[in-house]
Amino acid sequence: MSLIVLAGNQYGKAENRVVRIRRETPRHEIRDVNVSTVLRGDFEAAYTEGDQAKVLPTDSQKQAAFAYAKTQGLTTIEEYAIALARHFVDDIEPVESAQVLVDEYTWQRVVVDGREHDHTWVRSGREIRTASVVADAAGATVTGGLRDLVILKSTGSEFAGFRTDPFTVLQPTDDRVLATSLDAQWRFASTDVDWDAIYPAIVETMTATFATLHSKALQQTLFAMGKAVLERFEVVAEVRLTAPNKHHFAYDLARFGIENRGEVFHADDRPYGLIEATVGRS
Amino acid sequence: MSLIVLAGNQYGKAENRVVRIRRETPRHEIRDVNVSTVLRGDFEAAYTEGDQAKVLPTDSQKQAAFAYAKTQGLTTIEEYAIALARHFVDDIEPVESAQVLVDEYTWQRVVVDGREHDHTWVRSGREIRTASVVADAAGATVTGGLRDLVILKSTGSEFAGFRTDPFTVLQPTDDRVLATSLDAQWRFASTDVDWDAIYPAIVETMTATFATLHSKALQQTLFAMGKAVLERFEVVAEVRLTAPNKHHFAYDLARFGIENRGEVFHADDRPYGLIEATVGRS
Amino acid sequence: MSLIVLAGNQYGKAENRVVRIRRETPRHEIRDVNVSTVLRGDFEAAYTEGDQAKVLPTDSQKQAAFAYAKTQGLTTIEEYAIALARHFVDDIEPVESAQVLVDEYTWQRVVVDGREHDHTWVRSGREIRTASVVADAAGATVTGGLRDLVILKSTGSEFAGFRTDPFTVLQPTDDRVLATSLDAQWRFASTDVDWDAIYPAIVETMTATFATLHSKALQQTLFAMGKAVLERFEVVAEVRLTAPNKHHFAYDLARFGIENRGEVFHADDRPYGLIEATVGRS
Amino acid sequence: MSLIVLAGNQYGKAENRVVRIRRETPRHEIRDVNVSTVLRGDFEAAYTEGDQAKVLPTDSQKQAAFAYAKTQGLTTIEEYAIALARHFVDDIEPVESAQVLVDEYTWQRVVVDGREHDHTWVRSGREIRTASVVADAAGATVTGGLRDLVILKSTGSEFAGFRTDPFTVLQPTDDRVLATSLDAQWRFASTDVDWDAIYPAIVETMTATFATLHSKALQQTLFAMGKAVLERFEVVAEVRLTAPNKHHFAYDLARFGIENRGEVFHADDRPYGLIEATVGRS
Repeated sequence: MSLIVLAGNQYGKAENRVVRIRRETPRHEIRDVNVSTVLRGDFEAAYTEGDQAKVLPTDSQKQAAFAYAKTQGLTTIEEYAIALARHFVDDIEPVESAQVLVDEYTWQRVVVDGREHDHTWVRSGREIRTASVVADAAGATVTGGLRDLVILKSTGSEFAGFRTDPFTVLQPTDDRVLATSLDAQWRFASTDVDWDAIYPAIVETMTATFATLHSKALQQTLFAMGKAVLERFEVVAEVRLTAPNKHHFAYDLARFGIENRGEVFHADDRPYGLIEATVGRS
Repeated sequence: MSLIVLAGNQYGKAENRVVRIRRETPRHEIRDVNVSTVLRGDFEAAYTEGDQAKVLPTDSQKQAAFAYAKTQGLTTIEEYAIALARHFVDDIEPVESAQVLVDEYTWQRVVVDGREHDHTWVRSGREIRTASVVADAAGATVTGGLRDLVILKSTGSEFAGFRTDPFTVLQPTDDRVLATSLDAQWRFASTDVDWDAIYPAIVETMTATFATLHSKALQQTLFAMGKAVLERFEVVAEVRLTAPNKHHFAYDLARFGIENRGEVFHADDRPYGLIEATVGRS
Repeated sequence: MSLIVLAGNQYGKAENRVVRIRRETPRHEIRDVNVSTVLRGDFEAAYTEGDQAKVLPTDSQKQAAFAYAKTQGLTTIEEYAIALARHFVDDIEPVESAQVLVDEYTWQRVVVDGREHDHTWVRSGREIRTASVVADAAGATVTGGLRDLVILKSTGSEFAGFRTDPFTVLQPTDDRVLATSLDAQWRFASTDVDWDAIYPAIVETMTATFATLHSKALQQTLFAMGKAVLERFEVVAEVRLTAPNKHHFAYDLARFGIENRGEVFHADDRPYGLIEATVGRS
Repeated sequence: MSLIVLAGNQYGKAENRVVRIRRETPRHEIRDVNVSTVLRGDFEAAYTEGDQAKVLPTDSQKQAAFAYAKTQGLTTIEEYAIALARHFVDDIEPVESAQVLVDEYTWQRVVVDGREHDHTWVRSGREIRTASVVADAAGATVTGGLRDLVILKSTGSEFAGFRTDPFTVLQPTDDRVLATSLDAQWRFASTDVDWDAIYPAIVETMTATFATLHSKALQQTLFAMGKAVLERFEVVAEVRLTAPNKHHFAYDLARFGIENRGEVFHADDRPYGLIEATVGRS
């Protein structure tokens, strides 16, 4: 007869909204992040017996997240996440592995009379930069990434030559709008990285590939984006891309005697294609 | 030297909003679902070469999702998902494995003069019922579940005896509000199940356990909920539970000379504890 | 030459998430609300001079919102809002008029072995009940209401005989799905009302009218709903209804040789019709 | 005895997601908008009798919104909205007044090898530009605006000298973070305006004022922002500002022996102050 067992578990504090200002000089700096911590280890008794003796409260994890924003400095989200994850593994005995996930919201300085202001910003609202660090006794692995990078090209994209079945009514096209809201994660093979330099370089590599590749399908574009990153950055071991195909349908204006040569589109909400790819090294 | 390779891929059509009315008699029935399809198989050339010859368009998947709502009938979301997943595996040659995910929104009949109306409903708005079916040549696996079941108990919950560290300022408590917005999935060992009978029975088992167990921690409550489901339903092989600890902080009214004995709480948004458990059979 | 002036102003604390438990007996009661306060009065100097001498901090308004949840009791949201609005007008001298807006989330008791549990609930998730009270020296006006009541009828609705123009391609129909997510507010002519009795009675009146009226357009249905409330409840002076026409398009399955007699629909997200009506007394 | 009457009504099509590409040259241009139309006029019979003879379907309004994106060109959202609103008033006889509301999402060109790409953009994600046009037989009134401009200053803001009451526990501060997510609308006295020139100039005026004014309260900052716009732009008749005070609380690290001199903040979600001002001309 089977026994009922705890087959897996983890716990942590999600979505700590930490804002760090550096104000050593009149020109302040800002880091605005959403931090989540996840602990794995010897916590089974909490589940099976209700025994909390080994459980560090999630509130204590929150306090550490805020404290490290000061003591580590939140210089980059990657270094901050490494330090915080190490803290849990090194200082809290039942913890075998810790994950720290950080979302960063970027800010642009307000321009006054042609000059960047010292202590006022507007939130940029473009993509969210992400970092995920998993640490254990053996070391730490950093995965960089982004969320919600909305990118669109108005030509240079086709979709044709596809498989058909009795439910296929889609017509092939040699010129369409291609748009997505990209999520991507890239795993680093090392922690010896200039984090604030490599992030924009990776984003630039992906967006330039999206722009310049004549696309036969979103699948092809995604693979090319991942490949370009791996070719340019040896320290990146793998890239994962998740991309909704945000459909822009050419609007039928011929009914009204109006010609529409790829000029007016309906940006549909749902459903959407969802294409995923992982690009790695053999 | 390493080669750059496609290490993983899948694609499909997400969030088809299908509403199915049965109207064979004056008393209509409604099923309101959000369907996503995911295909895995021999699609590598689409990524690496831009060759779509084996790619069934996501639009064709959408058409099938709507067509099966009529031909299969959408009698239950589990049977509908099995039929649709089987269609992709059996009828589309490059597909090796298909996943169909369904969210169901439930509706209650409007009551008029004490009687349920034949063809008018209000959306219940409680939890979303979910089904995920993965099919391949060997068969189909069904995972049932729910999302966003918000449940709260106003007493019968404590949190004490936990591990402390220098960042621990949380005080132990022997009486607190315990609340969560539960996500759960339960994997079935068979497809020979009365789907519409077992769903409410599983939900009732979990909510009754949440209510009646004196809780020493959300961890303990989650494990007990999973265990109760496995004990009562032999056909369930495993239960996964993900539960934000939605903190309700007793509000400090003593500053105003007002006593607050667990009567007034601030329901905080963020951060929240996030507790996860998988309960299985050995 | 024109002078630049402060032409209007108000301020307050928005979205205080207050949960009130009554626990005088083993059978607890719960009220779960989102409270916003708005003050109007002699606050011009704060804007024009930066002089805060007459400005009660929004933080103090928050403290009052929590304190009144205990002292007033939050017996009903209407009485609580009246008491809190009166407090601001009566106790804070620069305040000439105060508005308190309350959203209430309803909870259902969990059922264990056929009996309602004493202190455990699940959130119902149906519509949100609302109250808005405006108080000044002359008295208080209560407006009840609801938000997000999603209601649908699968027959008994047509749309035909409408005006056409060169952009009209819509075909008339004598049988369609009619669905909306209703927002409604009803202004009371008095505060001498049994609030917890009248709310479900008004909702029942509106939903029964939606169900039973054969609808020639959403406009007609809305007017009939408001009229029915005014006819049944003399204490209601006016009803405002805002209703997105949540389009359910019959899905074209004929392309696949499948008949669809009003059985399979696509629930579209956007755009949507938006119909508004105010029904009053002459 | 009172009669029950239709006291107010309007209807339209909300949230048409129109994307307009100009592709006359290899360097394409994009306008990405969300358009809503609202008609007022002689529509009472639709409500009271179900008579649709004077009702132009909301679907026809949608078709016109897409058609005008081509024929008018969507050169600016203000001119597009004027043309579309005029169409409804001039061409559809029962319409007495039409409102067209447009939200615009802005895009930035992707940079490839230091040069802006011809037909690829990323969505900027900063504030949404808005336009609202109300047209009737007498003419058209344009109100420009923006939504969700998130702006923050890390110093140069205090809050002190405020009124207190028994619920006041807030301490005055001479240095705090001031942040808001600004919504603003500005009514133009004329339609003879260079719309694409004035929009960034107004935004720059408001953000520069936010940055440079030493703030004694958000009220003062809002009034100064509106005043600066009116002083600089004679064609603007009135500015309305709605601003949540997005609280950033200095985090208490002293408990851990760590000094926090305005460096680490908790960005709280709810509740928030909500400050509103209308600045006009006498």
